[in-house]
Amino acid sequence: MSNRLPTLALVGATGAVGTVMLDILSRRENVWGEIRLVASARSAGKVLRVRGEDVVVQALAPEVFDGVDVAMFDVPDEVSKEWAPVAAARGAVAVDNSGAFRLDPDVPLVVPEVNADQVRNRPRGIISNPNCTTLSMIVAIGALHREFGATDLVVSSYQAASGAGQEGIDTLRDQMAKVAADRTLGTEAGDVRAAAGELGPFPAPLAYNVVPWAGSLKEDGWASEELKVRNESRKILGLPDLRVSATCVRVPVITTHSLTVHATFSQEVTADAARKILGAADGVEVLDDPAKGEFPTPADVVGTDPTWVGRIRQSLDDPRSLDLFLCGDNLRKGAALNTAQIAEVVAREFTS
Amino acid sequence: MSNRLPTLALVGATGAVGTVMLDILSRRENVWGEIRLVASARSAGKVLRVRGEDVVVQALAPEVFDGVDVAMFDVPDEVSKEWAPVAAARGAVAVDNSGAFRLDPDVPLVVPEVNADQVRNRPRGIISNPNCTTLSMIVAIGALHREFGATDLVVSSYQAASGAGQEGIDTLRDQMAKVAADRTLGTEAGDVRAAAGELGPFPAPLAYNVVPWAGSLKEDGWASEELKVRNESRKILGLPDLRVSATCVRVPVITTHSLTVHATFSQEVTADAARKILGAADGVEVLDDPAKGEFPTPADVVGTDPTWVGRIRQSLDDPRSLDLFLCGDNLRKGAALNTAQIAEVVAREFTS
Repeated sequence: MSNRLPTLALVGATGAVGTVMLDILSRRENVWGEIRLVASARSAGKVLRVRGEDVVVQALAPEVFDGVDVAMFDVPDEVSKEWAPVAAARGAVAVDNSGAFRLDPDVPLVVPEVNADQVRNRPRGIISNPNCTTLSMIVAIGALHREFGATDLVVSSYQAASGAGQEGIDTLRDQMAKVAADRTLGTEAGDVRAAAGELGPFPAPLAYNVVPWAGSLKEDGWASEELKVRNESRKILGLPDLRVSATCVRVPVITTHSLTVHATFSQEVTADAARKILGAADGVEVLDDPAKGEFPTPADVVGTDPTWVGRIRQSLDDPRSLDLFLCGDNLRKGAALNTAQIAEVVAREFTS
Repeated sequence: MSNRLPTLALVGATGAVGTVMLDILSRRENVWGEIRLVASARSAGKVLRVRGEDVVVQALAPEVFDGVDVAMFDVPDEVSKEWAPVAAARGAVAVDNSGAFRLDPDVPLVVPEVNADQVRNRPRGIISNPNCTTLSMIVAIGALHREFGATDLVVSSYQAASGAGQEGIDTLRDQMAKVAADRTLGTEAGDVRAAAGELGPFPAPLAYNVVPWAGSLKEDGWASEELKVRNESRKILGLPDLRVSATCVRVPVITTHSLTVHATFSQEVTADAARKILGAADGVEVLDDPAKGEFPTPADVVGTDPTWVGRIRQSLDDPRSLDLFLCGDNLRKGAALNTAQIAEVVAREFTS
């Protein structure tokens, strides 16, 4: 153990998640010595602000990782696949926010509130950050699992446009501007489709609509996003046999994923007991008083860090099951924040 | 049995569902003799068009039911509660679209494709039409149940604004007009709430948002709409012990409810077998080829009669379970159409 502040590299500093990361690094307790900002050659030379200082963006190259202790990757899968091992070979611990390594048995998939202990099991020098939809529920589900033992999850998502990146946000805003002016739309098949214009990254119009698809087509009709929720929940909770059914649906919300979860446990669980455990859990906020109109909605939780939980009910036909509604900002805890938290766990190895 | 065309009264002819009913009565095979249009005294004297003819609206009074064979009620619960028995006492069969009688053991709850045989079990002379959310899935679930025997349903809804009436539609359109112009909204907690303006019938803004609430608060945190899905599904399917968990969520769609359903049966069921049964079922359309971008969305099915089903998958962890996505127009099959279909089953008693 040394006792210096570790050096951090942020790869993908100019992207959508990278931008949120600069804000997060500037607001959280400062555990870093030098912070290097890295992006594609196209963005090299740009000046970005982090922790109140101007930093010049460097082009991605093997040498930028020399002397780096932790390298965060907020880049597409194929960039991570190539460059995270390069960073690791140069001695950095790579914390990757892409899908490239999540199911690699030699790469831990970490949510610090749930399985921080996995951070040290990193034979490849790489730690992976889960998908945003999994992250929007797993802190709360993990807290309940610790107490009651999860056996089954049935998940339906209400996913925001920003899950499809800046193009997703722009597409939804453009469509909204087109359909909002016409008060006749939405009553006949195809009229919203005709008016909405470009579909962007979505397979159907998103304004005035919901679209039951996220990701790419996998075997037996499953969407990749649905399999991620299943496989990543199993790995994070350490439950390889957890039964998970997910249906992922995109909704016309800019940012913040919502989910309904029907969770079954190995023992009885009352709503009051669940409320108590969730209320005491790190990273979880309970907002659950429908008599006062209190439950989480994306419009009210966007921009915040916790996983918000409301509508907590014991299932009427199975005392071992709970029905829940959860909201989480898919760009914060769902991406940048969790990556920052993982990196901070690693940073403690250098200073403790 | 007589052999004359029966006389129909439509109570609530000037309302949102009544307006759709006039269209439906004008398009479907004509099984009616006289059609009387009835509404509150305020609307009496108005002239409405049905079956290509002008009809003067009469004020609701006991005498309007004299000589009426079938009286359809598309009015609020309290109006039905008072007036459906009046119509029945005057000799009409009342077909009620409100929530007033749905769980009355002496009133059948009918979806003709599922339990048309129940129409004759009407000791009070009243037949009830299910809630729009139940109706958006039950034709498809009923077809699968007939073949495989349903044991469990986990339902999440994506409910349209028009489920809250014309006020719901107007509120969403007004909010959309306000938020669509501002491209900065949706990234900070509360900014959509501040911009959206009036909440209308919803407990939170609906534009750029989803709201996990529909109906009124019942015991243990359940919303009335969620209990309706459970109780009505049990009654329609004739399964008093069916396990049902529903979470109802409002989404910024004008018309057409969508639902995800995780349905478990008493025997194994493959996606192909389900697709075959649903493809052959009356009132169901299968649209399920994600490789071609084919799945139902509200924007494409609004204004149509069937229940649309897509994303049909056998659950990966239980061969007795299916995961489905369904869409149904909540003003057509979800309200007016099913009422018309029930009335037509009764009409056959007069002509067959």
